Amino acid sequence: MTTEAVPTPDDLAAALEALRARVPLVHSLTNVVSANFVTNVLLAAGAVNAHIDNVHEAAGFARIAGGVLVNLGTPDDGTAAAFTAAAGAAHESGTPWVLDPVGVGALPWRSGLAVDLLRYRPTGIRGNASEIIALAGLGGDTRGVDSGDTPEAAVPAAAALLAHADVVSASGAVDHLVGRAADGTVVGVRIRGGSDMLPRVTSTGCSLGALAAAYLAIAPTPLVGLVAAHAHVAVAAEIADETATGPGSFAVAYLDALYSVDATTLAERARIEPLDVPAVDRR
Amino acid sequence: MTTEAVPTPDDLAAALEALRARVPLVHSLTNVVSANFVTNVLLAAGAVNAHIDNVHEAAGFARIAGGVLVNLGTPDDGTAAAFTAAAGAAHESGTPWVLDPVGVGALPWRSGLAVDLLRYRPTGIRGNASEIIALAGLGGDTRGVDSGDTPEAAVPAAAALLAHADVVSASGAVDHLVGRAADGTVVGVRIRGGSDMLPRVTSTGCSLGALAAAYLAIAPTPLVGLVAAHAHVAVAAEIADETATGPGSFAVAYLDALYSVDATTLAERARIEPLDVPAVDRR
Amino acid sequence: MTTEAVPTPDDLAAALEALRARVPLVHSLTNVVSANFVTNVLLAAGAVNAHIDNVHEAAGFARIAGGVLVNLGTPDDGTAAAFTAAAGAAHESGTPWVLDPVGVGALPWRSGLAVDLLRYRPTGIRGNASEIIALAGLGGDTRGVDSGDTPEAAVPAAAALLAHADVVSASGAVDHLVGRAADGTVVGVRIRGGSDMLPRVTSTGCSLGALAAAYLAIAPTPLVGLVAAHAHVAVAAEIADETATGPGSFAVAYLDALYSVDATTLAERARIEPLDVPAVDRR
Repeated sequence: MTTEAVPTPDDLAAALEALRARVPLVHSLTNVVSANFVTNVLLAAGAVNAHIDNVHEAAGFARIAGGVLVNLGTPDDGTAAAFTAAAGAAHESGTPWVLDPVGVGALPWRSGLAVDLLRYRPTGIRGNASEIIALAGLGGDTRGVDSGDTPEAAVPAAAALLAHADVVSASGAVDHLVGRAADGTVVGVRIRGGSDMLPRVTSTGCSLGALAAAYLAIAPTPLVGLVAAHAHVAVAAEIADETATGPGSFAVAYLDALYSVDATTLAERARIEPLDVPAVDRR
Repeated sequence: MTTEAVPTPDDLAAALEALRARVPLVHSLTNVVSANFVTNVLLAAGAVNAHIDNVHEAAGFARIAGGVLVNLGTPDDGTAAAFTAAAGAAHESGTPWVLDPVGVGALPWRSGLAVDLLRYRPTGIRGNASEIIALAGLGGDTRGVDSGDTPEAAVPAAAALLAHADVVSASGAVDHLVGRAADGTVVGVRIRGGSDMLPRVTSTGCSLGALAAAYLAIAPTPLVGLVAAHAHVAVAAEIADETATGPGSFAVAYLDALYSVDATTLAERARIEPLDVPAVDRR
Repeated sequence: MTTEAVPTPDDLAAALEALRARVPLVHSLTNVVSANFVTNVLLAAGAVNAHIDNVHEAAGFARIAGGVLVNLGTPDDGTAAAFTAAAGAAHESGTPWVLDPVGVGALPWRSGLAVDLLRYRPTGIRGNASEIIALAGLGGDTRGVDSGDTPEAAVPAAAALLAHADVVSASGAVDHLVGRAADGTVVGVRIRGGSDMLPRVTSTGCSLGALAAAYLAIAPTPLVGLVAAHAHVAVAAEIADETATGPGSFAVAYLDALYSVDATTLAERARIEPLDVPAVDRR
């Protein structure tokens, strides 16, 4: 692992400037709980979104979108078919796409869906620690959509998932992320910041996955893109935390902060650290 | 009816403390209008939620959840099958579950669904007055999802529904609730409080049903659980009303208040009164 | 075109007073992104909503509702069947209904749905400029759910759609609207106001379509109804803009302003202008 490969504050600033300049179009296939908030997060941050999860249109739109989010939060037979169509088309056409394996491990049907989707090589995978551990097949204790594991404990699983994706992150009090540098070496990154209020507002994790799809559409590398999405969220949540008096006012302030954070603020406040990634036994 | 059986302020304080200490996991099958707000209400109040309404996973998750909400707001053939699966599994495994009969009476297809679900004996039923009256088969005038009847007028219907459930409530300007005391006698409770803004914010009723499922997961009796959910909502809405300048700011302040209300405040501000329940002619 | 046929401030004031007095019941079939916000906008403005998009109940409810909204945002096979059922029943029973052709042009399957729905003669059609142009079959460049065209450029398309509907509007920085006066002549109206924040909050357009259905339920003519809905939104957004510090706080202030705007304020602040409408070549 090379610590020089960790994205710098200047990388983050450049990514945010590119997001605001190019306004990437995200194609989201996300759950009904998060659909509204996911879209508002993207609009606030500087992207746009089209939620298209029917099988008639999902593949075609994935080919023209800037980035695709496939979130397994509330699947049914119809949307599951659209997930496959969108992921397959994204893979074929080179559209970056993010897999958010909500509830994988705890719920057997969608766990099968998630494993099937790995064949289309997501650009990024974002989940909580238990989901990342479960998806990597290393076991883990997933309690619904909340995590019983720490992000730190998910690092070996995240590294193992680099067999299927370019970058993988586990969100939590401190986000942990692994990817590959330009020379192919594995890079680990820890992103501090955020707020204790984030888990008190639903869909903050899902919308981070969507923002990752937006950044992957415009970033120079998947590693920079996923780190920038985490950093944007972590800084905005810190700012929102300064004025919030509960989860209702936090959610409002968080959308305002995603909008008002500029490149200078992001570069100054982001707390990115190198993370040692253990060698993965590639069975 | 024994007025001594009406839950006391200490009962409510103990229930809120148990909620915060145990953080029950609710399994919600709710409508697409309310899915986000329902989850945010649960997170703010002190529970967690997983919205799982596909037929492949609904039964299995209902067995391991702390409480289940089945809300008939926006059913389709797929979610209707999941309702049956979840309610059946909850009944078999002893998971407390709440039926929210949204639109029953006005809408024939879902009225049939609701009657079918009664066979799985919901722990609690929560609706508006017209829905409770319609579900009890006593007639009533339901105008969509709004109520043309008063909660007081729904008390005989609520009492009749005790043939199918442990506790039943009709929400409105003053909530009316019936259940059974430990000795089997019927108990009536009136919960005052709330705000004129509650009907101006969608899903406040649906999220009360979800909070009921959370309280039923941890309360000593269904009666205490449902009364505590109503009281938590009524007190939080009163607090939010003090600062709101319209329905937008009310919804934000309401989530903040659900979060910040503690056991002492709940016990002091809850306005619980005994309610005479007429004898029901059990035909 | 007769400029005297443009609705006056007094017409708008009377429409808002009728809305508040009669509290129309909207039947919405809208997308999962907007379902919650659409309902909150209706409740804030002075209407009520029932979101019923299953094929078993959609036709029956469309017959008894005050107005119907069919929004193509996130269709699937099930809701598409419900759209047809609701639109057909609305047409047969004389319930005013609004078609919001979200994504038409960019997305082929729903474009076919939209053309099929025109046979049921929507009372009003509301979209962004690209959607209106695409629906009129005049071409246009639709980028997902955002518009690459200006509302002014959509006026000929809107006028052409008067072959299928009574009133048609294209939303944007300045809303453009065409309809017919009592004597059958074509009338054009420009509505100024709003806020740069409107496109930063998802579902503001969708909820304008829903509010149009509410106003069509109570207005003396479709022209007055659709103009009043646009004016109510434009004035509320202007008021919200005065205090908002980002899209999160804007959305909250917008709901408060929809609620607090009264007939006097609406009449004073609405900026309605006559618009020249080119003659349409009716091929």
